[in-house]
Amino acid sequence: MTTQANETPRPHPGFFLALEGPDGGGKSTQAARAADWLRSLDFDVVACRDPGGTALGERLRAVILADESVHPTMRAEMLLYMASRAQLVDQVVRPALAAGRIVVSDRFLLSNIVYQGVAGGLDAAEVARVGAAATGGLLPDLTLILDVAPEVARERTGPARDRIERRPAEYQAKVRAGFLNPAGLYDAPVVTIDAGAGPDAVFGRIQREVERVLGLGSRP
Amino acid sequence: MTTQANETPRPHPGFFLALEGPDGGGKSTQAARAADWLRSLDFDVVACRDPGGTALGERLRAVILADESVHPTMRAEMLLYMASRAQLVDQVVRPALAAGRIVVSDRFLLSNIVYQGVAGGLDAAEVARVGAAATGGLLPDLTLILDVAPEVARERTGPARDRIERRPAEYQAKVRAGFLNPAGLYDAPVVTIDAGAGPDAVFGRIQREVERVLGLGSRP
Repeated sequence: MTTQANETPRPHPGFFLALEGPDGGGKSTQAARAADWLRSLDFDVVACRDPGGTALGERLRAVILADESVHPTMRAEMLLYMASRAQLVDQVVRPALAAGRIVVSDRFLLSNIVYQGVAGGLDAAEVARVGAAATGGLLPDLTLILDVAPEVARERTGPARDRIERRPAEYQAKVRAGFLNPAGLYDAPVVTIDAGAGPDAVFGRIQREVERVLGLGSRP
Repeated sequence: MTTQANETPRPHPGFFLALEGPDGGGKSTQAARAADWLRSLDFDVVACRDPGGTALGERLRAVILADESVHPTMRAEMLLYMASRAQLVDQVVRPALAAGRIVVSDRFLLSNIVYQGVAGGLDAAEVARVGAAATGGLLPDLTLILDVAPEVARERTGPARDRIERRPAEYQAKVRAGFLNPAGLYDAPVVTIDAGAGPDAVFGRIQREVERVLGLGSRP
C-alpha cells in the first residue's frame, strides 16, 4: 500500500492500527468491523488480538486471564503479556507489515504500560522499555483509544469475566486515567475516541481517523 | 544470618547463591549437594530452579523446554524465562532472603544473558535490562559458573533432552564463551569453576567459595 507524501514515512510498507482502552469500550467489535471495512476497500488485512494471535500467545492468554492456579504477580503478568507480544510481532505483525498488509490489533503495548504500570504500580517507563525489547521497537502507526467510563463499561460487560476485570474500581479508574494520559510513556500517534457514544458513531470516528492517516479522504 | 565485617553489605539479611553454566556441568546435582551441606551447617536453605520454582514457573518451564507445538521465537523465549523468574523472585527468593535464609538457585538471570543474548543474537545488554525489570534489580550475592567444554557436556548429558540442548554445536560454543566472559553485562560477583574435574573436586571448590563469602573459614 502507499501513503500520502505528507505523512511521516513509516519503517515498513504496511499500516499498523491498534485499538486500545479499558474493557467495555467495544474494542473487539470495532476491531472486527474495521478489518471488514478495510477489506471491503480491497486492502489486505490481518486481524489479531494481543495477548494471543499465535499458538504460544493463546496458551499464555489462557494462563494470564483464566488460569486460577498460578496467581501471577504484577511483574510476571507484565512479562507474560510481553512474551505473547514478542511472538505475535515476530510471527505475525512484522511479516504482514513487510508485505504491505494492514494489521488491526485488539490491544498492544499501551495496555501493559497502563494496566501493569500506571494502574498496577510497576514503573511505567520501565514497562515501556521492556516493551521495546519485546517488539524490537515496533509501535503502531495509529493507536485509537476507545475511552469509556468504568460505570458504563461495567454495565456493558456485565459481571467480571476474567482476573483483570475482577480488580477493584480504583484500579479500573486508574486504567482509564492512564489511557487518557499516556504522554511521554508511549511514543506513537494516539487519538482518543469517546466510546460512550453508540457503536455506529464510534465506528464513524474510527473510519475518519484511519482515512485521514491512510490518505483515503478523496474516496466516496 | 550474619556476614563478616569485611564483606560488602548485602541489601537483605540472607544469602543468594546461583549456579550457572552450560548444560552438562553438573549444576543440578551440585546445587542439591550445596543445599544439603548448608543445611547440615544449620542454615535455613531454600533450593529452587530457574525457570521453575513456582506453579506458574513450572507451567512456563514446560512451555519453554518441552512444548513442541508453540515454537517460541528468541525474544518470546527470553521473556518467558523472565516471567518465570519474576514470579520466582516475588514469591520465593525475596521473602526467603528477607527472612535471612539462604537461597540456592539452579540457574538465574545470567543464563538468559548468555543463551538468548550472547549466543542467541539478542542484544545482551537489553536482556540484562529486561532482567532488572523482571527481578526488581535483585542479583545473586555469589554466582558460581560451572564451566565445561561442549564435548564433555554432551558426553555427560547424552542425547539432547530439550529444545535448547538440540541447538547446534556453534550455539553451544557461544554459550560457553558467554559464561566465561559475562563482564559488563552482569553486575554481580562471579567465580568460574572448572566442572571438567570430578564431582567431588567441583563440590570442594563450591564449598570453599561459599565459605569465603559467608565467612565460614574458621569452621572445622
